Amino acid sequence: MNPTLEIFSQGEEIVTGQTVDTNAAWLAQEAIHCGFTVTRHTAVGDKLTDLINLLNDIAARADCCICTGGLGPTSDDLTAEAVASAFNRPLEFDDIAFEQIKEFFDRRNRPMPEVNKKQALLPQTAKRIDNTWGTAPGFALQHQRCWFVFLPGVPSEMKGLFLEHVKPDLLTRFTLQPPHLVSLKTLGLGESAIQELIKDIKIPDTIELGFRAGTDDVQTKLLFPFDYPKTDLDSLVTEFSECLGDYVFAIDGLEEPTGDLAFEIDKLMTAKNHTLAIIETASHGLLAAKCVGYDWLIQASYEKSVAVSTQKLNAEELMAIAKNLALKTQENTRASAILVQLYTGDPGALRDKNKSIQVLSFLLIDKAFYQTTHFILGPISRKQNQATLLSLDLLRRYLQDKLI
Amino acid sequence: MNPTLEIFSQGEEIVTGQTVDTNAAWLAQEAIHCGFTVTRHTAVGDKLTDLINLLNDIAARADCCICTGGLGPTSDDLTAEAVASAFNRPLEFDDIAFEQIKEFFDRRNRPMPEVNKKQALLPQTAKRIDNTWGTAPGFALQHQRCWFVFLPGVPSEMKGLFLEHVKPDLLTRFTLQPPHLVSLKTLGLGESAIQELIKDIKIPDTIELGFRAGTDDVQTKLLFPFDYPKTDLDSLVTEFSECLGDYVFAIDGLEEPTGDLAFEIDKLMTAKNHTLAIIETASHGLLAAKCVGYDWLIQASYEKSVAVSTQKLNAEELMAIAKNLALKTQENTRASAILVQLYTGDPGALRDKNKSIQVLSFLLIDKAFYQTTHFILGPISRKQNQATLLSLDLLRRYLQDKLI
Repeated sequence: MNPTLEIFSQGEEIVTGQTVDTNAAWLAQEAIHCGFTVTRHTAVGDKLTDLINLLNDIAARADCCICTGGLGPTSDDLTAEAVASAFNRPLEFDDIAFEQIKEFFDRRNRPMPEVNKKQALLPQTAKRIDNTWGTAPGFALQHQRCWFVFLPGVPSEMKGLFLEHVKPDLLTRFTLQPPHLVSLKTLGLGESAIQELIKDIKIPDTIELGFRAGTDDVQTKLLFPFDYPKTDLDSLVTEFSECLGDYVFAIDGLEEPTGDLAFEIDKLMTAKNHTLAIIETASHGLLAAKCVGYDWLIQASYEKSVAVSTQKLNAEELMAIAKNLALKTQENTRASAILVQLYTGDPGALRDKNKSIQVLSFLLIDKAFYQTTHFILGPISRKQNQATLLSLDLLRRYLQDKLI
Repeated sequence: MNPTLEIFSQGEEIVTGQTVDTNAAWLAQEAIHCGFTVTRHTAVGDKLTDLINLLNDIAARADCCICTGGLGPTSDDLTAEAVASAFNRPLEFDDIAFEQIKEFFDRRNRPMPEVNKKQALLPQTAKRIDNTWGTAPGFALQHQRCWFVFLPGVPSEMKGLFLEHVKPDLLTRFTLQPPHLVSLKTLGLGESAIQELIKDIKIPDTIELGFRAGTDDVQTKLLFPFDYPKTDLDSLVTEFSECLGDYVFAIDGLEEPTGDLAFEIDKLMTAKNHTLAIIETASHGLLAAKCVGYDWLIQASYEKSVAVSTQKLNAEELMAIAKNLALKTQENTRASAILVQLYTGDPGALRDKNKSIQVLSFLLIDKAFYQTTHFILGPISRKQNQATLLSLDLLRRYLQDKLI
């Protein structure tokens, strides 16, 4: 039997629905990958008695609890106070935490506001979890059967603290048999299309199949039990990979860690010593934005006149314009790869969620010219993001030798 | 006192984190706008005893509960069974529900699978909620102090049923007094800096003060009771607005609806008939990306050579380069406003979360030249996003006549 784990989110912004609780889903997935059975999520607001009652309920019910939120400097941040009261551990001033909070402001050349001093108050005997991402230290303590971990609610801080400090500690503190997760990351296929493609694969009962449709990929997830034979695992993953074909841009959970599409492209651009210049239209800057931090992007531009003037052209005219733009850009920038994006559609189709646009991506590389075409429907933010990913994916397919 | 409401989500896909529970946030906002106080969200999986215990806890604790999920046809859909058992209301076959389920398949020219018959079983005395969006009827019943409403978990079905049937019923079933929410949206101030600035404002006890720090703004939220006098509301909002000064880019909840920073800029750019060209560095395309859908952006470019060559220059040199770039861009594009972003820092500082960069934003507009400078620390994605917002905010300040 796996140890049980509950997730507890504190904050009016969660309970009132102003913020969707993405932390809970992220933590649940992490906990399952550690080998816990997640039994419950609870969110409560800023009422001290609600917090105290819930902490006591969980202490009697679960082996572990990860709590997020309520560690901020303001008067509605009540987690430490609730813990002190529920578990009878008076708050004590932690000098090291206080120094860290002061340093956080020093590094930013800002005086520490008086209210932040409160964040150095931790429940007696709690183990401090140092926070280099923000001002609120986390903390952890045992009460009755449950090991409680308290983290800030800001997702980037919470994730940093969890991966760096909490996860390694949980893996030694509990006897866990982490399952083995393999995720096939694809772009350009919906969940039902994937289901169709894999429908003839025989999946043993001990393996859990799941899907996760995110904004930047669709993942097909295979959760293998702790002791599943490696050769059987590999052969099942290969079977999935063959069914999903070129749509797979990365497989996570095998040898090397994988990232998002830009990260996978970065590996290959760097290895092959390529540089890139981009002309974007429907993606409207987001193509360049997704390549932030990578040295191979040397120029990116958006011009309304290009975006607008090509919307009614036919395939031949578009190809001619794309070639011309690509060659001119190559001459100006000396980049080894040029990505040109154009799109067509009715006037206003980009903004109209019920109208589709056709996105054409052109790649000039190693003296050859490649092209893909996709139709995209939905709100403008979806069109912008899909146009970005589908254009980048043409580059990925070339770099992974998937283009004929 | 508002009646209290809890939200209860059923399903392994929520508890394991494969699905982010957006239903809970959506329902919470709807409930608050109806005049409920939302006190708790809970998610549990497919264990019958967990469901029964939770239903009994809620029956004793809340005035109303909206439950989603677990109404499907398969063996892990246990909600009706759990209700029958927890509240001692045996399941009964509902002929009308059965007819509706059959019709659902008839309309699609598909035979009704045998498993769907189960969806016509409802707890004794439950009020059926007809579902024209899918196969699972919802149902509602009173137990102890709590009015329970059970809806399917598919978001489109849940929302349709809630808006069409549940909400009108709740508004007559409960005595509700919808509150009034006002949010001051700011950029460039952290939550604790805001607390410092507003600390002398006397806030009546009946008003709830809250904060929401998002990636794109920090919101100071005032929740006024139903019957709060309009003149008192306006004067308190004015007091907040004056304390927060130029940092406020929009106030939500007064007359006209507001949006994000780009949306607010759009109103003014359109009214004043301006056009914009952008040269970006640290924001790396994201400045253009945030302006997607607005016609006044006519050109945006990122050039690695500009981003890199200026990183070690002093203020005077930077100003000279920015002026030169701005004038050249104005000549080429004929845009009425030119936004130039440059940044300085150690090599690699953009990628190093412990090193800060200095972002300089320059605006050439109506023959005048304006400038702001900000230090940004943190992961590259935060630096990119903050650089984007802070450069855009210079334009917003000019358009709102906040620059001297």
